[in-house]
Amino acid sequence: MTYPARVKIVEVGPRDGLQNEKEVVPTETKVELINRLAEAGLSMIEATSFVSPKWVPQMGDNSAVMGAIRRRPGVTYSVLTPNLQGFDGAVQAQADEVAIFGAASEAFSQKNINCSIAESLKRFEPVVSAASALEIPVRGYVSCVVGCPYAGTVDPQKTAEIAKILFDMGCYEVSLGDTIGVGNPDSIRRMIEACARVVPIEKLAGHYHDTYGMAIANVHASLEMGMATFDASIAGLGGCPYAKGASGNVATEDVVYLLHGLGIETGIDLAKLAAVGDWISSTINRPNGAKAGRALCLNAA
Amino acid sequence: MTYPARVKIVEVGPRDGLQNEKEVVPTETKVELINRLAEAGLSMIEATSFVSPKWVPQMGDNSAVMGAIRRRPGVTYSVLTPNLQGFDGAVQAQADEVAIFGAASEAFSQKNINCSIAESLKRFEPVVSAASALEIPVRGYVSCVVGCPYAGTVDPQKTAEIAKILFDMGCYEVSLGDTIGVGNPDSIRRMIEACARVVPIEKLAGHYHDTYGMAIANVHASLEMGMATFDASIAGLGGCPYAKGASGNVATEDVVYLLHGLGIETGIDLAKLAAVGDWISSTINRPNGAKAGRALCLNAA
Repeated sequence: MTYPARVKIVEVGPRDGLQNEKEVVPTETKVELINRLAEAGLSMIEATSFVSPKWVPQMGDNSAVMGAIRRRPGVTYSVLTPNLQGFDGAVQAQADEVAIFGAASEAFSQKNINCSIAESLKRFEPVVSAASALEIPVRGYVSCVVGCPYAGTVDPQKTAEIAKILFDMGCYEVSLGDTIGVGNPDSIRRMIEACARVVPIEKLAGHYHDTYGMAIANVHASLEMGMATFDASIAGLGGCPYAKGASGNVATEDVVYLLHGLGIETGIDLAKLAAVGDWISSTINRPNGAKAGRALCLNAA
Repeated sequence: MTYPARVKIVEVGPRDGLQNEKEVVPTETKVELINRLAEAGLSMIEATSFVSPKWVPQMGDNSAVMGAIRRRPGVTYSVLTPNLQGFDGAVQAQADEVAIFGAASEAFSQKNINCSIAESLKRFEPVVSAASALEIPVRGYVSCVVGCPYAGTVDPQKTAEIAKILFDMGCYEVSLGDTIGVGNPDSIRRMIEACARVVPIEKLAGHYHDTYGMAIANVHASLEMGMATFDASIAGLGGCPYAKGASGNVATEDVVYLLHGLGIETGIDLAKLAAVGDWISSTINRPNGAKAGRALCLNAA
């Protein structure tokens, strides 16, 4: 059980996080957040999404955000793109990378985007082709990798099947999302085992929600299997759309505290990161969802 | 890596938890909490402490609490006793079990109780003798098992040394406390390895704080080593006396969610437990510190 020497964190707070906050966050706050995250050493930041503002009003200022951020050398600014129209917006906004998404649960796909998994994946093919022509990397997300809010337990084989489709379609990395946070170290390990049989583990990322407090244990179990990329959200921004008031994305500060404690490099300055989490939490007037972040700021005060 | 088939939870919320809450909690609330915890299936509840009310005013109603609780058959009601005077109070109050404590950090012992570790342990000898004469089981706590707020990292050998002294003195079980929550799965494993060389692992318990969000990962790593007893606090009651506003004891609901998810029996009704956590949090007007507890109550609502 040796850990990866270095782990990449994909910061999803500005997109996945803020999208699920009640209050619409001002554009300048988003820009400042992204700039501060880059300064803390994050090398990959999902900045916004190019989805119709009808569906996701929180991200209606996507072009303005992308136009105003200070591009730090070495940092990848990615955006979510559900279709070709969104992709065109992303290209105009000079996104470094785009992301597409599929579900591992048929029930979730139907309820969430009103089509089958197969249909949803088919819609991404032109996005991947267009991105490939422009040499823009595409990242794939799979949601509901161990459990679904509508259908319960998800078969690891189903998750592996979707991961393989996204990888074969051209995604350079596939992020495995425990959307409702019901995974535990055993179910996460079984899921990764199945996925790693069809996609190399170095092309897989863990995207865990902390709804039931299991996310850090799940990150640790994944590290032991050799996974070296994790998505996380500063201050635990976001929350769970399926249980209002519950926790959502695992907090970046907690993940980095774990990694540094295990001697794994991230390139991130944890003290600076904790200060960013504290700042965004107070700025948008919500409790800081990062336990390590809170403790570090209290000790520093 | 097989887990224990069954795990015992020692509920420390009414004592370790409430002792660190700002507000003094009314006696009837404490009694109701203890009764509800027993009804949810907890078989071991640390109910109060017999410490001078000068030092711990929150536990000044110890005899009243012990006199008013409804004793459920099969449930052990234990109390903390720092000295013979406290032990006499515990006996009069018909405590089923008593607990004593030592630190693995010299600096912590000096700052916290103003004497050396050796002196503090010496003071417990008459308590253990008196308990032995009355056939009252004694549990031992070791604090700062991996880190100390004053001296930093703690040597696993030092922790093992104190655990062995308490065990040899007559404690039937030694609970290993990560008092400031700085442990991670690696440091916790090294600490348990050292302790299990001198005390059988089935006589060791994990008592982890969630100050930096690592507690559930630490419980999981401990389970994989065969540890089968864990201390936890309903709704994460308590907090960290060394960083006000930070998390303290790991929440019982989160631990039980993990255990049941891994197929480990506890005898606890998790839905009932989550309701108790919700009730005590709203009754004493604090946020519910259990992530699984919050999510379960939201889903049940």
